[in-house]
Amino acid sequence: MTISRADCVALDADDPLKHLRDEFVLPDGTIYLVGNSLGAMPRAAAAATARVVEEEWGRQLVGGWNSAGWFDLPLTTGDRLAPLIGAGPGQVVVGESTSIAIVKAVSAAMGLRPGRRVIISDLANFPTDRYMVEGLVKALGGYEVRDIGVLDEVLGDDVACVLMSEVDYRTGERHDTAAVTAKVQAAGALMIWDLCHSAGAFQVDMSAADFAVGCTYKYLNAGPGAPAFVYVNPRHHARAEHMLTGWHGHAAPFAFEPGYRPAEGIRRFTVSTPHVLSYAPLNASLDIWERVDLGQVRAKSVALTSLFIDLAEELRAPYGVELVTPRDPERRGSQVSLRHPDGYPVMRALIDRGVHGDFRAPDILRFGFAPLYIRFADVYDAVATLTEVLEKEHWRDERYQRRLAVT
Amino acid sequence: MTISRADCVALDADDPLKHLRDEFVLPDGTIYLVGNSLGAMPRAAAAATARVVEEEWGRQLVGGWNSAGWFDLPLTTGDRLAPLIGAGPGQVVVGESTSIAIVKAVSAAMGLRPGRRVIISDLANFPTDRYMVEGLVKALGGYEVRDIGVLDEVLGDDVACVLMSEVDYRTGERHDTAAVTAKVQAAGALMIWDLCHSAGAFQVDMSAADFAVGCTYKYLNAGPGAPAFVYVNPRHHARAEHMLTGWHGHAAPFAFEPGYRPAEGIRRFTVSTPHVLSYAPLNASLDIWERVDLGQVRAKSVALTSLFIDLAEELRAPYGVELVTPRDPERRGSQVSLRHPDGYPVMRALIDRGVHGDFRAPDILRFGFAPLYIRFADVYDAVATLTEVLEKEHWRDERYQRRLAVT
Repeated sequence: MTISRADCVALDADDPLKHLRDEFVLPDGTIYLVGNSLGAMPRAAAAATARVVEEEWGRQLVGGWNSAGWFDLPLTTGDRLAPLIGAGPGQVVVGESTSIAIVKAVSAAMGLRPGRRVIISDLANFPTDRYMVEGLVKALGGYEVRDIGVLDEVLGDDVACVLMSEVDYRTGERHDTAAVTAKVQAAGALMIWDLCHSAGAFQVDMSAADFAVGCTYKYLNAGPGAPAFVYVNPRHHARAEHMLTGWHGHAAPFAFEPGYRPAEGIRRFTVSTPHVLSYAPLNASLDIWERVDLGQVRAKSVALTSLFIDLAEELRAPYGVELVTPRDPERRGSQVSLRHPDGYPVMRALIDRGVHGDFRAPDILRFGFAPLYIRFADVYDAVATLTEVLEKEHWRDERYQRRLAVT
Repeated sequence: MTISRADCVALDADDPLKHLRDEFVLPDGTIYLVGNSLGAMPRAAAAATARVVEEEWGRQLVGGWNSAGWFDLPLTTGDRLAPLIGAGPGQVVVGESTSIAIVKAVSAAMGLRPGRRVIISDLANFPTDRYMVEGLVKALGGYEVRDIGVLDEVLGDDVACVLMSEVDYRTGERHDTAAVTAKVQAAGALMIWDLCHSAGAFQVDMSAADFAVGCTYKYLNAGPGAPAFVYVNPRHHARAEHMLTGWHGHAAPFAFEPGYRPAEGIRRFTVSTPHVLSYAPLNASLDIWERVDLGQVRAKSVALTSLFIDLAEELRAPYGVELVTPRDPERRGSQVSLRHPDGYPVMRALIDRGVHGDFRAPDILRFGFAPLYIRFADVYDAVATLTEVLEKEHWRDERYQRRLAVT
């Protein structure tokens, strides 16, 4: 390879973020390049969760809704998360899942653009984004879902909103949110960004967007099924109303009024009882993020992914491995996808050798580089293992050829 | 009082469920009659949650979706919960909140009754039930929400479904689910029961109902924000489709198909990534429930609430305390509500003396009797403390008179 392992070890020694790796639990012998699917566990998450269970629920019981701040968790956690997506306080709520967050954002956008009956959903969105819009449109009737081909060709005065992912979950391609947002808004439509593969990967800027949604269990390391977030641009706070009008979003939740009245501001985007336990690891993770310079995170991400791309390119000629992710760092997130006709068994063989990426049908191998805990030496070792798997044709092993669902 | 404390202690000694109290964490000096709002913590919940965080997430990382069974948690947990509501395996999914569960059930009922444009929601439902239906109906257009006055008068051939709570959250009144279900179905409509105040309070029977929803953090003791459940009668499994069509409910979730196809059976009522951590205490709680005879639970519940009612009735003449909950045990759940014009300061004074109930505006004091951990002596002590608060007029203390939101 064009760079030595010793060079990579030297890069790690100079890494200004190197001290953060100790904040995470990473099993021995594992190179974990799946942080773009489920982030590693912050060491502090265990104690934080135990505290909520034993100290808050166990001792404060129902009083915890006030004394432990459970009732306001969607807002207080949202305020802590906001800087990571370029938002301010009072603009983000945390709760439910990305799928539910999409219903909130799209239904609110529909209400803000009455008469416009088209919802544009990128075919490159993660499928649940499209499925949720499909369910919503089918239930409401009179709406149409249009796929993005060339954005200029599908935008028109019948479009209520556009739902697009900043970073493509398969290819790792990053879109120019400022340019797309401006184009969509120039057509009179509202822009909703899915930030699942952006938040925590680099500094996101949603100041121009209308809405954004995203999960917290990938680069934000908040654990399996951690709550999602919704950002609403403050210019819409007075008028935006979504359809999941639960009691926590009511102007007077404890007045038990017969009819719904939305709360002021972002609180109306809460729905109901927050999943209290699931906020604990997220807040433990945000304790780390508050101490991190996002410029350094991005610089390291670009360096890690560039190194991986440079090394992986050497596998093109001998083994037919193709790069899927753009070479231009500005056009990618913190993930690199490769293509190989036997991608599935290749990934199984890699995982058996301790290098964890994942596979997306039909032929894509995904590798995520979480800058808080991935090292340059990990990149080197991952490519060395991939080279060995390809060179020795380990992937032809019969057990790797069986096709299994890979999450 | 007409019964002595020693009598109550004797009743506790004979209680076949008395050994279960040790399975729960109950702070010293507290009589916790708020299990109808947030159940006490099973001792095993702490270790169960820590195991999910540290062993599953920490060590298995993204592999936990398969190896730790995360992906199927909504179904496996639903199967464990099913017997408590008189349902069978493959009929219940656990996930999200009751508010979201209502959207699933009501939107599915709408689809099963096309052309019928009225949704009946009991005004006595917990407000979020009504708010969610209101949001849904407003978004869909062309539907109408009708309140229940006299059921016979509002049922008609325009009614798609009726959403009602088996036990009224304010009064503790229990409805005859069999009779109401039969009447609703005779009118061609579908019956959706809210079991928030039923599940875990007594043996529920949903075999005739069309849908049911409920939470698990009250009598089921699964912790703050624990996931909710949806029951779908198997006769609807082939045709029922709800509007929250997320990828976990897809027939082939990992095929990443462009369009939504519902999974077979109850799985289509899942939406997206389950809040994994929040299932741990629920499963710890279900370990207890699997060892419990629901007939004994109900017998003890009736005995506890009857004792409380008998003792509280003695406070009517001297202090103007009125019984809100029906005296007939068949017509109540495991909660007793009292009315007092100064209910709020009375409850504050009670709580300061270690007797925890809660208050619902304008004048209702609620007391929940979770049969797994409440003792007859607790009932005696609670009424004795209430008597003292009323007798000595502790509640006139200025600090209790301040009106604050009580969760």
